[in-house]
Amino acid sequence: MHRFFVTRDSIHDGFIVLSGRNTEHFRVLRIRQGETVEVSDGEGTDYICIAGELIGREVRLNIVEKRASEREPSVICTVYAAFPKGDKAETIVQKSVELGANAIVFFPSRRCVSRLNGAAAVKKRDRWQIIAEEAAKQSGRGIIPRVDVLNKFDLAVEKAAGAELPLFLYEGETSTSIKKPLFERGESVKTVSIMTGSEGGFEPHEAQKAKDAGMLSVSIGKRILRCETAPLAALSAVMLCTNNF
Amino acid sequence: MHRFFVTRDSIHDGFIVLSGRNTEHFRVLRIRQGETVEVSDGEGTDYICIAGELIGREVRLNIVEKRASEREPSVICTVYAAFPKGDKAETIVQKSVELGANAIVFFPSRRCVSRLNGAAAVKKRDRWQIIAEEAAKQSGRGIIPRVDVLNKFDLAVEKAAGAELPLFLYEGETSTSIKKPLFERGESVKTVSIMTGSEGGFEPHEAQKAKDAGMLSVSIGKRILRCETAPLAALSAVMLCTNNF
Repeated sequence: MHRFFVTRDSIHDGFIVLSGRNTEHFRVLRIRQGETVEVSDGEGTDYICIAGELIGREVRLNIVEKRASEREPSVICTVYAAFPKGDKAETIVQKSVELGANAIVFFPSRRCVSRLNGAAAVKKRDRWQIIAEEAAKQSGRGIIPRVDVLNKFDLAVEKAAGAELPLFLYEGETSTSIKKPLFERGESVKTVSIMTGSEGGFEPHEAQKAKDAGMLSVSIGKRILRCETAPLAALSAVMLCTNNF
Repeated sequence: MHRFFVTRDSIHDGFIVLSGRNTEHFRVLRIRQGETVEVSDGEGTDYICIAGELIGREVRLNIVEKRASEREPSVICTVYAAFPKGDKAETIVQKSVELGANAIVFFPSRRCVSRLNGAAAVKKRDRWQIIAEEAAKQSGRGIIPRVDVLNKFDLAVEKAAGAELPLFLYEGETSTSIKKPLFERGESVKTVSIMTGSEGGFEPHEAQKAKDAGMLSVSIGKRILRCETAPLAALSAVMLCTNNF
């Protein structure tokens, strides 16, 4: 079933009005009058609707059922990823949304080749936010995870450390596997953060900063994972251990 | 450290000879004489070598240390993926190798849009095998996982069912999460198979065939995962629960 996200002001008594990019999307999908579609308010409520006619730039959908979204995970997990090169950020955003991340945050680290500042950062963030929305539609999410860009490593650590279970994925970590905290505390934690490096990983002083801020340094196996693979592997582990798989 | 895979006949007493594509790669990487490189025999043994001069189409590397590869997972896990559209097969191969799969097998299923037969299948398989080799080098694997193409769904089920823990990822499965068998038996299993569908998932009669063959039908969460994401999420879960993360 095709799925749309709308803002609250589009939801009326008994019907929903699609406009803007949603209308374009509706047109591209060649949805016919009478077809059933799903609409989410992006805040956890789903509406099952019957498509009406496309008139000009708007489509009216008649609500036949309203229900709480069943697809949101019970854990609030944020992915903090150091800026990668090329289009890897898009992969991280798309797959993290599918796998149930609540938000994705990009930040700079010492070994990042890419830098993101000013107008370029705003433009990229906007593009990543659209990717997040498309992935949320496709995977049936009840919210559109937010994509953010931070301009300081320290700020990212500070925010990530605020989660109940703040995981810092570090290649130099040889004693603690991500399995330990997840098996011990996975069933009870409500908020998790996953912080991963760029192509070259983290510098030792960055790992120290994360530990000093209260983050848990963990390893994710002996294979060297690409920077876009590590957050997805960790997110899968988190979803498994918090009963969201 | 740069890593190469060679066949046994390239390994001599005290030195290794790189040739063919390995020499090309050596040249592209601009490796200098005296630099340390790692060579794997693809069967679990690593050689630490000092690079010699590139002469014509060959490079001689002097062995300084021989040791068992430390990066191979203890579990033998094979990924069986239904033919996806476009370049998603490449993503599945690359990421599965990084995450520790022992082999990747593509097969047809009812809802596959793509078909792979005859010469096209051979050509694609060869290309995927090269991707597997590159990923094995990059991630530091001790073997090059093999990529295979089967032309029958039934044959794929028969082979997959041969593993100690044969997991069939099915969207229609609502009662058993992948967590259950992995938490119960993950620590002791030696061989696992993961079977995943194409864009449209599996047909109910295919799921029935898999169950009849002894496979375990499992779900992997309420979000709808793309066909290239599901095997990687499942593989991450397997590696976590078998102590390979």
